[in-house]
Amino acid sequence: MTRIALAVDLGGTKIDAALIDDEGAILAPSRNRRPTGPAITPDGLRAAVTDVVSRALAHLPEGAEFAGAGIGSAGPIDLATGSIHPVNMPGVHGFGLVEAVRDAVIASSGEFDPIVRLRHDGGCLALAESWLGAAAGARASLSLVVSTGVGGGVVMGGIPIGGASGNAGHLGQMHVGELTVEEIAAGPASVRWAQLQGWHGETGEDLARSAAEGDRIARAAIERSAKTVGQALADASSLLDLEVIAISGGFSNVSDDYVDLVAAALRDWAALPYAQRTRVVRSALGGDGPIIGAAALVLRA
Amino acid sequence: MTRIALAVDLGGTKIDAALIDDEGAILAPSRNRRPTGPAITPDGLRAAVTDVVSRALAHLPEGAEFAGAGIGSAGPIDLATGSIHPVNMPGVHGFGLVEAVRDAVIASSGEFDPIVRLRHDGGCLALAESWLGAAAGARASLSLVVSTGVGGGVVMGGIPIGGASGNAGHLGQMHVGELTVEEIAAGPASVRWAQLQGWHGETGEDLARSAAEGDRIARAAIERSAKTVGQALADASSLLDLEVIAISGGFSNVSDDYVDLVAAALRDWAALPYAQRTRVVRSALGGDGPIIGAAALVLRA
Repeated sequence: MTRIALAVDLGGTKIDAALIDDEGAILAPSRNRRPTGPAITPDGLRAAVTDVVSRALAHLPEGAEFAGAGIGSAGPIDLATGSIHPVNMPGVHGFGLVEAVRDAVIASSGEFDPIVRLRHDGGCLALAESWLGAAAGARASLSLVVSTGVGGGVVMGGIPIGGASGNAGHLGQMHVGELTVEEIAAGPASVRWAQLQGWHGETGEDLARSAAEGDRIARAAIERSAKTVGQALADASSLLDLEVIAISGGFSNVSDDYVDLVAAALRDWAALPYAQRTRVVRSALGGDGPIIGAAALVLRA
Repeated sequence: MTRIALAVDLGGTKIDAALIDDEGAILAPSRNRRPTGPAITPDGLRAAVTDVVSRALAHLPEGAEFAGAGIGSAGPIDLATGSIHPVNMPGVHGFGLVEAVRDAVIASSGEFDPIVRLRHDGGCLALAESWLGAAAGARASLSLVVSTGVGGGVVMGGIPIGGASGNAGHLGQMHVGELTVEEIAAGPASVRWAQLQGWHGETGEDLARSAAEGDRIARAAIERSAKTVGQALADASSLLDLEVIAISGGFSNVSDDYVDLVAAALRDWAALPYAQRTRVVRSALGGDGPIIGAAALVLRA
């Protein structure tokens, strides 16, 4: 009998839900989403959760075993209370996301006491990459997103590393020099830096196009982002002894060699041989990583 | 029946061995040591291992259950081969320490196939602090030594975090600004910095005395070290979501408020609330931490 999990992925712009089977395949018709955004309220989020969960569960195949619900959320989170404190959605700090998903599952499925597990989205991404992606088989891996923010997660021996409250993996809040990685290397930060140097453009896509056309400032902004991410990853690998690092996220596509630039910066900056040996590769799952990893929280436990 | 482990602690100046029972008590008469040093050769180290192991095992109480041998070593190490690559003993890079200890145990005890486990000394320290020390009961902790070097280890849910090759915990090779933590904050680095500012003194003890007497440069050197360690720990806690950090090592005694200065720097530098909440405390085990943790590798598995 096929085991199926409900996966929920809550981010700063949308909440996504889907059914995922125990081989990691997304049941396409079940996938649906609602907008979130910085102004969302607890009532608005509760309604969105109920809606995406019920729409996804309506596609549960007859005879399938329902394994439970896994949730990836924008961080920070608080595992002890099952609540979220997302930086980019201040109106829902303290929202009980585990309880909201559990209530929605009970209402839609008739399950009496479903398993519901929460991690932040970076932790889910890392679990997915270590299950089915670029970090499969690695003893210790870190997977990260470079996009409007920078975040990730850590997996050792197949187990996601949570830390005291579930927030391990917030690489974007590590420092390189006086600033955090996110303040230097995220897409919007890189665009702002290029504008301050005199570049005329508005978006990460503009930056990619300018750099491909030979614009030196745009290219410098990309190199600055990759160097910063690589230096933070060197420190992360000194501390965690990582075998593989998998990079995803929109801004990591800003140039063909972005991942190579990160890898070179890591090798230059890491002080010990084991950390210099860490492989830096492109994610194998892309944007589906977090939702597949959310399913893995219940399918792979 | 009391379970007893042989614990071996290999450092840059000496190798130490002792028998330790399953409550973490060191059987004092069994404890013995030999010098090592930067010029030690593989033959010299093998002889020292054989000597300290046989002297310790001679004190194994009649009727006690021998649980195996745990080893803490100066890092880096390579868990896959059981070998060591210690920065400060270049002549023994690649030395098979697990095999050398196993051979010595077999020769001394008549055990046929003893359990022998290796971690770097920082990992052992962290395991000891989470077992019997300042991090007991914590869901996620990091313990570190600030001495002639800076190093540590990480424990989550009672399990030491090893990473791909057993080297997780090398906090001293993380960067703060352009330099590593060890290059800025270790005892000798702090003494050198103070000398460059015009301070007249030679050792960490001199620095402690000068600062206590009101010397501003000596005090500034201590604050510089503590701030650097605190900033690196803020990044470590952002990445690992640590509940408790325990500090030990000779240089952490350079002033009464050293640990408080580290804690204040961590709170100032950490970007997210969960990392700001990390408690920074003084080690409860002091210099015995690494050897007790080596025993824990076999007593607590």
